[in-house]
Amino acid sequence: MRNLRIAIAGLGRIGKIHLGNLCQMRGVEVVAAMDPLEEGRQYAKEKNVPCVVSAYKEMLDATAPLDAVIICSPTDTHAEYVEMAVRAGINVFCEKPLDLSLQRVVEVLKVVEESNVKLMLGFNRRFDKEFKKVKELVQNGAVGHPHLVKITSRDPGAPPISYIEKSGGLFLDMTIHDFDVARFVVDKEVEEVYAKGTVLIDKAIGEAGDIDTAVVTLTYTDGTMAVIDNSRKASYGYDQRIEVFGSEGMVQSNNNFMDSHKLYNAEGIHAALPLHFFLERYRDAYMVEVQDFINSLGKGVDVPVNGNDGLQSLKIGLAAIKSLKENRPVRLAEIV
Amino acid sequence: MRNLRIAIAGLGRIGKIHLGNLCQMRGVEVVAAMDPLEEGRQYAKEKNVPCVVSAYKEMLDATAPLDAVIICSPTDTHAEYVEMAVRAGINVFCEKPLDLSLQRVVEVLKVVEESNVKLMLGFNRRFDKEFKKVKELVQNGAVGHPHLVKITSRDPGAPPISYIEKSGGLFLDMTIHDFDVARFVVDKEVEEVYAKGTVLIDKAIGEAGDIDTAVVTLTYTDGTMAVIDNSRKASYGYDQRIEVFGSEGMVQSNNNFMDSHKLYNAEGIHAALPLHFFLERYRDAYMVEVQDFINSLGKGVDVPVNGNDGLQSLKIGLAAIKSLKENRPVRLAEIV
Amino acid sequence: MRNLRIAIAGLGRIGKIHLGNLCQMRGVEVVAAMDPLEEGRQYAKEKNVPCVVSAYKEMLDATAPLDAVIICSPTDTHAEYVEMAVRAGINVFCEKPLDLSLQRVVEVLKVVEESNVKLMLGFNRRFDKEFKKVKELVQNGAVGHPHLVKITSRDPGAPPISYIEKSGGLFLDMTIHDFDVARFVVDKEVEEVYAKGTVLIDKAIGEAGDIDTAVVTLTYTDGTMAVIDNSRKASYGYDQRIEVFGSEGMVQSNNNFMDSHKLYNAEGIHAALPLHFFLERYRDAYMVEVQDFINSLGKGVDVPVNGNDGLQSLKIGLAAIKSLKENRPVRLAEIV
Amino acid sequence: MRNLRIAIAGLGRIGKIHLGNLCQMRGVEVVAAMDPLEEGRQYAKEKNVPCVVSAYKEMLDATAPLDAVIICSPTDTHAEYVEMAVRAGINVFCEKPLDLSLQRVVEVLKVVEESNVKLMLGFNRRFDKEFKKVKELVQNGAVGHPHLVKITSRDPGAPPISYIEKSGGLFLDMTIHDFDVARFVVDKEVEEVYAKGTVLIDKAIGEAGDIDTAVVTLTYTDGTMAVIDNSRKASYGYDQRIEVFGSEGMVQSNNNFMDSHKLYNAEGIHAALPLHFFLERYRDAYMVEVQDFINSLGKGVDVPVNGNDGLQSLKIGLAAIKSLKENRPVRLAEIV
Repeated sequence: MRNLRIAIAGLGRIGKIHLGNLCQMRGVEVVAAMDPLEEGRQYAKEKNVPCVVSAYKEMLDATAPLDAVIICSPTDTHAEYVEMAVRAGINVFCEKPLDLSLQRVVEVLKVVEESNVKLMLGFNRRFDKEFKKVKELVQNGAVGHPHLVKITSRDPGAPPISYIEKSGGLFLDMTIHDFDVARFVVDKEVEEVYAKGTVLIDKAIGEAGDIDTAVVTLTYTDGTMAVIDNSRKASYGYDQRIEVFGSEGMVQSNNNFMDSHKLYNAEGIHAALPLHFFLERYRDAYMVEVQDFINSLGKGVDVPVNGNDGLQSLKIGLAAIKSLKENRPVRLAEIV
Repeated sequence: MRNLRIAIAGLGRIGKIHLGNLCQMRGVEVVAAMDPLEEGRQYAKEKNVPCVVSAYKEMLDATAPLDAVIICSPTDTHAEYVEMAVRAGINVFCEKPLDLSLQRVVEVLKVVEESNVKLMLGFNRRFDKEFKKVKELVQNGAVGHPHLVKITSRDPGAPPISYIEKSGGLFLDMTIHDFDVARFVVDKEVEEVYAKGTVLIDKAIGEAGDIDTAVVTLTYTDGTMAVIDNSRKASYGYDQRIEVFGSEGMVQSNNNFMDSHKLYNAEGIHAALPLHFFLERYRDAYMVEVQDFINSLGKGVDVPVNGNDGLQSLKIGLAAIKSLKENRPVRLAEIV
Repeated sequence: MRNLRIAIAGLGRIGKIHLGNLCQMRGVEVVAAMDPLEEGRQYAKEKNVPCVVSAYKEMLDATAPLDAVIICSPTDTHAEYVEMAVRAGINVFCEKPLDLSLQRVVEVLKVVEESNVKLMLGFNRRFDKEFKKVKELVQNGAVGHPHLVKITSRDPGAPPISYIEKSGGLFLDMTIHDFDVARFVVDKEVEEVYAKGTVLIDKAIGEAGDIDTAVVTLTYTDGTMAVIDNSRKASYGYDQRIEVFGSEGMVQSNNNFMDSHKLYNAEGIHAALPLHFFLERYRDAYMVEVQDFINSLGKGVDVPVNGNDGLQSLKIGLAAIKSLKENRPVRLAEIV
Repeated sequence: MRNLRIAIAGLGRIGKIHLGNLCQMRGVEVVAAMDPLEEGRQYAKEKNVPCVVSAYKEMLDATAPLDAVIICSPTDTHAEYVEMAVRAGINVFCEKPLDLSLQRVVEVLKVVEESNVKLMLGFNRRFDKEFKKVKELVQNGAVGHPHLVKITSRDPGAPPISYIEKSGGLFLDMTIHDFDVARFVVDKEVEEVYAKGTVLIDKAIGEAGDIDTAVVTLTYTDGTMAVIDNSRKASYGYDQRIEVFGSEGMVQSNNNFMDSHKLYNAEGIHAALPLHFFLERYRDAYMVEVQDFINSLGKGVDVPVNGNDGLQSLKIGLAAIKSLKENRPVRLAEIV
C-alpha cells in the first residue's frame, strides 16, 4: 500500500507537534510544509520535509496530488485554507475554530458538504485518555442516565492581551473546548446557556473587553445540565477535570501530575503539581487525534470530530457571550 | 462552678443525637426533655433525664430556672418555641430553619434582639472538621483572594414526599445548608442567585411541586461567584465536597469514607463508599456544635451561628425559588 | 435483663478511655474502680463510679459479685490480677501483654483454662475499621491465597527511656501489635522469625539495650511470608499501614488523616498529616473492643482475642529478640 | 557539528524501543543494525537503517568509525560484544546484566578501565520520573538521614520457564533492578543480604530451581536497611513502588495508572489498573536513558550508570542466592 501524502500549513507550537508526530507514523509521508516565518520553515527542513514553502497555495499546487492537509495556521486563515483544500479534493484536518463568525462557518461547512472530502476539527481533548475513558464509561451505562456534567478548566496563566483581542475572548478561545467536551461526554445537544463572568486576574483583560473568570450553566435538550468553571490563571498550573453524575453512579477524571511522589514531613504531606499546560497534558492526545484522522482516510469511516461539532461549540460560545452581556439565560435557537 | 441546666425539646433523630452528646459533656445537666411521642420520652428516660414531659410549656415551667433549651422539634414549632424561651430569658439552640416565612423569621429575630439571651442555629456543617479546615485556610490567606466556591451536595436518597411537601422544597430544606456554607467559607454575602433545576429522580417529587436536581450560581457582593450542585439521590451515598479557588491557590475537601482500603484485582482498584448519610458524616460535628454553644453561654463570646445567618440563608433560598420559576437571575434585594 | 457489673483496675491513659466508653454502653454498670494514684481515682469519681479504691483486692472483695474486670494497670501486675479475678470467677479483659515472661504467661493461661471464666486480651488494632476490613476481604477470598503480608508501624516519637527499660523493648512493647496483626489478618501461625534492627533515632535507646528501627521477616507455617518495618519516631506522626498480597489480588489500608483537605498552590499540593497517635487513631477501636468483650459475656460466644493470641505474639517477640542478637533466623520452636 | 554514528545490536523488544527512540533524537544517525533473526532485521529496514546485517562483527567492521553501539542482544553475548566494541574504541550502552558470572564481569570491566571508551549499563528505572524524583528529594535532604528503603516490585506474569532457566533466576533477572534502585536512591553500598523466598505461583518455576516470591532485607554499610518484596505474578499488573523513610520525613512514589478515572457506584469506588508492564511504565525512561548516554558522549561527563553499578548489583544478587540456599544473612564480602 502506498504512503499517504500529507502537507502541513503553519508551524507554530501546535504545527510543530503535529509534524513531529506525523514523522513517526507508519504509512504517512509529509511531502510539504508551509509557514510564512523562516523559523517554522527551518523546523520542517530539519524534519526532512522535501517541499518547504511560505505560501499555502504554492504548497497545494507544488505537491499535488495530496491526500490531506493539516491546517495549524492562525484562526483567521482557517476558513479560506479549508475551502481551498476542499475544492482541490484534499481531506482536511483543521485546528479549531473554523472561524469566529457563525455565518462564515456555515458557508465553509456547506462547501465541505457538497464535496467528497473529509474535514476533521482539532478538538484534542476528545483524544485524551482521561476524557475518552469518561465518555466510554458514560456510553456503556456505567453511570446510568447522566444528570449533570461538571467541567473545571483553568489555565496556568493568561495569554497576551494581543491574543485575547483577536481570539474572540474567553468563551471562544478557551471555554469552547469545554463546550465541546460537554457535548462529547454525554452525546447530547445544548439548548440553553447561562454565563456569569468577571475580571479577577488582570484589569487589562477587562479593558480588552473580556473576562478571566466564569461559571457557565448549560441545559441540554433533555433538561439535564452541565456546569463549567473557568479561570485564566490557576497558580498551581493547568487544571482539567471532569465529572459526570448519573442515576446509577458518578465518574470523575483528575488532572495528570508531574509524578506520583508524596513527601510526608512534620508540616504535612506534599505532592507534585499537575502537568504544566496543554502541551504537556495533551502530548499523547495530539498524536492520537492525527493518527485517528489518518486512519479515517481512505476508509468508509467518519472522522471523529466533524464540522458540525465545530459549529455547535461556536453557537454555545456565542450564546454565552450574549448571556453574559444581558445577564439572562440564552437559548441556542436565538443564535442565528 | 455549678452545672448548666439544659432542657431539650423534640427527640427525633437529631434530638436523640444531641441528648446523647449532652450526657457526655462536663458541666452540663440535662434537667428536662419533651416529646409528644412516647418513643421519644422513653429514650430520655433511659438517659436518666429527671423531668420528661409531652408539652413544651410544661417543660419550661417545671424546670425553671433553665440556662438553655435545645430545640429539635418540627420546623413549624421553631418560631413559637424560640419566642417562648427567649421571653423566659432562656438561651436557645435551635435546629434550622427558624421558619419558612421570611416575615416570621424577622419577627422572631426582633424578639431575640430585644432580649439578653443567645440564639444559635444548628448549621452543623460549620463544625465538621473538613469545612472548618477549608474556612481556616481561606481565612489565613492560603488561597489568596477567593474567586470561586464550588459545593457538591448530594443525598443518598430522597426523603418521603410527605416531608418534601412541608419542607419548603429542595432549596429550603437541603440547599440551605450549602447556602450557609457558601457564606461561611469565604465570609462574604450573596447578592444574586441563578437557579436551574429539574426532576430526574422521581416524578412524584415534581408532582409535589419540587425539583430533585439543581445547579445554583451565586454571585457575592464583590462579584466573585459560587456554584452549588445538588441531587436528592446519589447511588453511591452521601456526597459532600467543597472547593475554594483563589488568586494564590485552591483548597478542596473530600467526602469521608467508610474506610481507606484499596483492593487491587484483575478488574481494577476498588475502594469503600462515602459514609452513608449525615448522621454518620456529621457525627462529630453534632457534638462540636452543641459543645460550642454550651461554651459560649455565660461568657462574653458570641454564638458561632446566629439568627442573621439563618435569615441570609433563607433569603438566598427564596431567591433561588424565584429564579427557578422565572428562569432569570434574582437579586437578594428583591426578596422582601 | 439486669445490668452487667463491671470493675476497672488502673486509670492511666487507656483506663480512662475504657471507663469513658463503658459509661456510654447500655446494659453495663461500672460498680468499682481502682487506682493507686489519687488522680486516677478522682477521674472515676467524676464519672460517678460508686466504689473507688486504691487496691485491687479491696475492689474485688467490696463489689462481689462482679461480672467482669477490665485490667489496665501496669504490665507487671497483669498476671497476678488476672489470676485473682479468674480464681474469683470473674471474667477478665486485660491489656496486653499478660506478662513478659513466657513461663508466667503459660502459668496464667493454665489457670484460665481450668476455670469457666473468659479472658480477653486488648489487641485493639483488631477492632479498628481498617484492619477489620482487610481481614474481612482476605477471609472472603478477595485476594485469593495470601502470599505476603506487609505491615508498617511507626510511632510519632519514642517513649521515655524509663518505659523502654521495663517494657521488654521494641519487639515486646511495639512490634507485638504487628505480630498479632500478622497472625490476625491471614489467620496463619508463624514458624520462623528473622529480625534486623538498629539504633538510628536516639543513642540513649541503644544504651538502654534496645533498638529503635527494625525490619522483621516472618515465615508462616505454610511458607508464605510477612514483613514488618518499625520506627520509634516518624516525623510526620503515627504511621499504621498494612498490605496483603495474594494470588488473586492485593488489599491495602492506609493511615487515617486529620482531614481530607488538599491545598494546591505554586509549591505543590499539600494535605493533612495522619492522626497523631494511637489515642486518636484507635479511638473507635477502643470502644468496639470493650463492647465486643461485653457482648461475649453470658453468651456462648468466644472472646475475639484469647490467651493463646497473647502467647503466640509473645513467642514471636522473643524469637525476634533472639534473632536480632544472633543475626540468624530463629524458629518459634526454639522459644520454650 | 556532525551527527553521532550509532549501531544497534539485537532487535528484540528492547532493541526495537531503543531503535525507535534513536530515530527521533537530534544529532544521531543510526548507521547499522544487527540481528540474527529476519524479523528483527526487517524492523530495522523499515526504520531506514542503511546497513542491516546478521552478525555483530560484520556490523562493527562495515560501519567504522562508530561513535557508539547499543547492545540489546541476549545476556550471554553481552560480555563478548562489549569487549569487541571497547577494543575497537567504540562507546557502549549495554542492557543489564553484563554477565551472570562475577569473574567474567570483572574481566570485562578491566578491559573497559584500560580503554578510553565509556560503558553505560541499562538500568532503566534510574531514568523513570518517579525514581528520579525520589532520589532527588533524598539527595536534597527532604527526608533527613535515610533510615529505611522499601521497594515493591511485582511483575504481571512469570516469564517462560525457558527464560528462567537461563536468566540466573529471580534475584539476577528481576530483583537485580531493585538492588540497583536500592543503591541508587540513597547512594549507599550494601554490606549484608538476607533473602527469603518460595514458590507460590507456579510449581514449574520451583522445578527449574527458582523461586517466584521473595522478601530480601539489605543492610547498608552504615547499618540502615532496605527491604524488597517481589512476586513474579501480580493479578492486577505491574507493581513498582518505592518508599524512603528518614529522620525528617518519608517519600513514596506510586505506580503509574492507565488513567485517573474514579467510578462511584452502589458497589464502591473503582479505578484503573497500573500500566501493564515495563514497556508501558518505562516508555519515557527508555528514551531518557539513551538520550543521557548520547549526551555524555564526547563530553567530559560520566555516564549515569557505569560498570561498577552492574558489578555491585550482581554481587548483591549472588549474595541473595547464597542467603536463600543457606537461610542465613550473607555479607557481600563473602561473594568473591
